[in-house]
Amino acid sequence: MDTCAPTSTRRLLGIDWGTSNRRAYLVDAAGTRLAERADDQGMLAARPDFAGSFARLLAAMDVDADVPVVASGMVGSAQGWRDIPYLDIGVPLEALPDCLVCIDDPRAGRPCLIVPGYAQRGAHVDVMRGEETQLLGAVALGRRDGWFVLPGTHSKWVLVEDGIMRRIATFMTGELFATLSAHGTLAPLMTGDDDDAAFVAGLDEARLGAPLSNALFGVRARVVTGAMPAAQARSFVSGLLVGAEFVAAGRAAPLTCIGSPALQARYARAAGHFGVTLAGLDPDRVYCAALARFLDRIPS
Amino acid sequence: MDTCAPTSTRRLLGIDWGTSNRRAYLVDAAGTRLAERADDQGMLAARPDFAGSFARLLAAMDVDADVPVVASGMVGSAQGWRDIPYLDIGVPLEALPDCLVCIDDPRAGRPCLIVPGYAQRGAHVDVMRGEETQLLGAVALGRRDGWFVLPGTHSKWVLVEDGIMRRIATFMTGELFATLSAHGTLAPLMTGDDDDAAFVAGLDEARLGAPLSNALFGVRARVVTGAMPAAQARSFVSGLLVGAEFVAAGRAAPLTCIGSPALQARYARAAGHFGVTLAGLDPDRVYCAALARFLDRIPS
Repeated sequence: MDTCAPTSTRRLLGIDWGTSNRRAYLVDAAGTRLAERADDQGMLAARPDFAGSFARLLAAMDVDADVPVVASGMVGSAQGWRDIPYLDIGVPLEALPDCLVCIDDPRAGRPCLIVPGYAQRGAHVDVMRGEETQLLGAVALGRRDGWFVLPGTHSKWVLVEDGIMRRIATFMTGELFATLSAHGTLAPLMTGDDDDAAFVAGLDEARLGAPLSNALFGVRARVVTGAMPAAQARSFVSGLLVGAEFVAAGRAAPLTCIGSPALQARYARAAGHFGVTLAGLDPDRVYCAALARFLDRIPS
Repeated sequence: MDTCAPTSTRRLLGIDWGTSNRRAYLVDAAGTRLAERADDQGMLAARPDFAGSFARLLAAMDVDADVPVVASGMVGSAQGWRDIPYLDIGVPLEALPDCLVCIDDPRAGRPCLIVPGYAQRGAHVDVMRGEETQLLGAVALGRRDGWFVLPGTHSKWVLVEDGIMRRIATFMTGELFATLSAHGTLAPLMTGDDDDAAFVAGLDEARLGAPLSNALFGVRARVVTGAMPAAQARSFVSGLLVGAEFVAAGRAAPLTCIGSPALQARYARAAGHFGVTLAGLDPDRVYCAALARFLDRIPS
């Protein structure tokens, strides 16, 4: 037995384990991606047997037995593998590697370290699970201050000061967009292609500040009175929902977007319209940078 | 043949023909209800054969052949029996009886007069079909001025000055409540009974003015952090959505609610919380008062 730390422990497998999907990254100590795998075994699909689902992922990736595994996201929620208590928002992001919770289930074949989420309590209760890991990665890459937007099903706006989250605000933008596209009065109208003018018109409508329940009906009213072609409704609704985030955030600067290229482009368009400069960060890059921080603290 | 107007022409059948349901009222010249019938043959169900659906309703009610029939609501929309153009908001409500559009389809057995809806164009596009008839009834009962709220799937707030609508604002309150109860993140939480304290907490949250996409996520955040029992989520969401209407309307006074007793009670609770006095009007009573106005103008 080698008394030095085996090289394999200088690798780490990170699992971004969300509600519907799961993505695993094998990284080295520098956060370099060595392997990657994505599947649809998110929390909802894996729920009957998290330990088995975890073991199958590791087998499929053929990860050495002594490589530690860290999972973030909804896997640590009340509907997840285990309900990991939220950290208070005052806990610095760089303290996350000291807060991992170990699940040691024999059916899993090896332990899994779970990253806790954060909760903001008081007047504006809010929560996150998963985004804290990306934000740790941003901090690791030197972005210790400013506003971050992480668009998605539940779009997060986060103010970070010296590596500590000061404010979390979550918007159900993606979820409402999907729900309105599938159900109710607007669904039959929301079939058009991306339309920049309609997206901007939605941003402008958001700026007027009417409640979404009123502004959304206005989409139908515009279409039935001929004031807007039905083909523009989908992009207009997107503009309304994204615009509401920018209006609520005020002049958030500097603003960094952690999201896919398509979402970054959409948020950059909105930011420009609201007079805010938006910098982009690749979500895989920040995630791997966070994994390197975790690996740093895991004893070999 | 009697040269005097036969007594039967001094009756009128009104059909409040909405999207999902339909309600018919036989009234005399004073607006007294002589018969009534409700069914689920709203626009969506009747769409394959409006004329046949109309004929079956009249046969079921055994209405004399010379009784005129007036229908209001979504029956006059693009998805209805015929797409009747909207009146401009500047047309006085009392001019409605002069604006009826006659559908004379042989398969219907007799003509049907359709009440046109109204459109507000310009910066705040909005539309109504059906509520204009209730508002005409309110005017006929002497309520010529003030704010009216007609809660429902698409809750209408209408400012009336001397019998003319000056402002229409529609809120998708009922539709969003139903959609959120059935789909997505909040649906599993929205199962509790009516809870006054939670409804009021939702009203207070609405007053803070955050976008609904943010405030709705806050419901989930409260529940998962233990700041609110899940059983309160349903009433809290109701308070958020109803509260958004009151916040947008500002201090709308005098305010009259045309709605069912249950909805009037809910809106009265919200009005009281926002320091507004709300008077109630029975929707059947205003509808029949409007029918008497129509009958007044139909030549015998």
